[in-house]
This record gives sequence, C-alpha cells and structure tokens, in this order.
Amino acid sequence: MDTLGRHLILEMWGCCKDIIDSVDAVKEILAKATESTKATLVDVVCHRFSPYGVTGVAILAESHISVHTWPEYGYAAGDIFICGSTINPQNAASFMIQAFQAKETSLLELKRGDFFAMKIRDGRPMEMNANAIDSQSTGYL
Amino acid sequence: MDTLGRHLILEMWGCCKDIIDSVDAVKEILAKATESTKATLVDVVCHRFSPYGVTGVAILAESHISVHTWPEYGYAAGDIFICGSTINPQNAASFMIQAFQAKETSLLELKRGDFFAMKIRDGRPMEMNANAIDSQSTGYL
Repeated sequence: MDTLGRHLILEMWGCCKDIIDSVDAVKEILAKATESTKATLVDVVCHRFSPYGVTGVAILAESHISVHTWPEYGYAAGDIFICGSTINPQNAASFMIQAFQAKETSLLELKRGDFFAMKIRDGRPMEMNANAIDSQSTGYL
Repeated sequence: MDTLGRHLILEMWGCCKDIIDSVDAVKEILAKATESTKATLVDVVCHRFSPYGVTGVAILAESHISVHTWPEYGYAAGDIFICGSTINPQNAASFMIQAFQAKETSLLELKRGDFFAMKIRDGRPMEMNANAIDSQSTGYL
C-alpha cells in the first residue's frame, strides 16, 4: 500500500439553485453519495446559512464527503475523501454531479498520506511503481 | 471578488500518536484551530475508530476544518476550507501543526469557486489580475 487515501476535489457550477439551497436535499444527496460508493456512513451533519447556502458533511468510516453551496452563484464545492483501496470515490462524484444537476464541473484527485512522497523527499532511490501509469491519482503532496 | 474560498490541504507526518488517537484532543484542537482564525464555529463532530484513528470535522460559518488520523503511521490529514477573504486559513494550519506536533508537513493551497477559472475555460479575454503575483493560492480547478 503506497497511499492512505484518495481525495477528490469537485467543483460544480450551474447547479440547480433550489436543490443546493435545501438542507433536506443536501443531506439526502450526501447519504446516497455514500451509498453509491458502498462506504459506511457514520453521521451526516448539515447546516443552513442565512440568507442562503448549505454546508453538509457526511462522516464515513472511510473518512468524509462534504459539500458547501453558494446558491446565489449556482456553485457547490464537493470533497470526497476515501481511505483504503476497496472503495472508489469517483462513484460519489458522479452521483453528486447528477444529483446537483451541475452543468460544468472540474475534478482533481489528490493522494493523501502518500508514502512514496515521503521517500522522494527523503532522497531515497525509488523503484518503478508498476501501477503508476494507470494510477488515477494526480497529486503528490 | 474572484474566488469563493481558500482550501488548504495539510499533510502531517511524525505526529504525536497519543494526541492523534484521542477524540478529546482532536476535538479541542479543531475548536482552537477555529479560534486561531477567528472563524465562527457551528459544530464539531468527532468519531473514534477501532482499533485506532480519529475523524473530526469542525463545521464553520466559513466552511470547515477536518482531520483524519492514522496513529499507526503517525500521520494526520488536515483540510482547512475557508470562504470569504477576511479570514486566513493559514493560522489554523500553523496551529494544527504545532498541536499535533507534526515533524514533517506539506501544504497545498487551492482556490475553490474560482471565477477566473470559469472565464479561462470559456475562452474569454483576461485582464491582468493586479493581485495575482502576490496571490497565495496555487491551484486553478
């Protein structure tokens, strides 16, 4: 195992404003996004701000999924942080994009807790990582 | 205003294992990290995993601060997502690094909800952003 977690940074523009301004809708979407990855939901906490906007965080056994919304701009910021290698966070990203009806999106994937990054910084010689070419993670921190 | 939020991705290695394996300690550190930025704390939710590890999320009026810990590796993954331009998330990062006693760290800052990124993707002509050179944000998504 070379990395402890995969963290997807999801930008969603052109979302349905009624959906991203509703605590109930955001809560349900976070719960279903969790289901879509088959991750384990521990708790969901949502908060509605005044005059608009919702923050929602689903705490998972495998880390978290969060969303912050700006209905006045039709924008929602999603984060899907999944640890381990058996669950694919991309399923949650796909689900959220559909559920928020986002028209334009961007997705960045980061490795979190990357042992290779530590070795690189220590100046240690590196063997070729056989999976590197097919690796979907794009960031070494 | 060109961006809605600043998101710091904080990797902490060589942390004190007793601290990062304690729900009480993590909860207190999240609350104090919030104070250090003068952000507004709405709620803190923490969960202890078996056999070790803690997940903590502080929900703020200005978004969130989260941490996931792996005591078996002395590693903690921090995220500090602050919206608006009056609060500096770097204060929370400094505080967390000290509080978790991290020996090695890396920090990446991302712009979230970046209007300039949208304009670039739309192929619109860009004026020089007078603040760009001093901008501390490093990622366009």
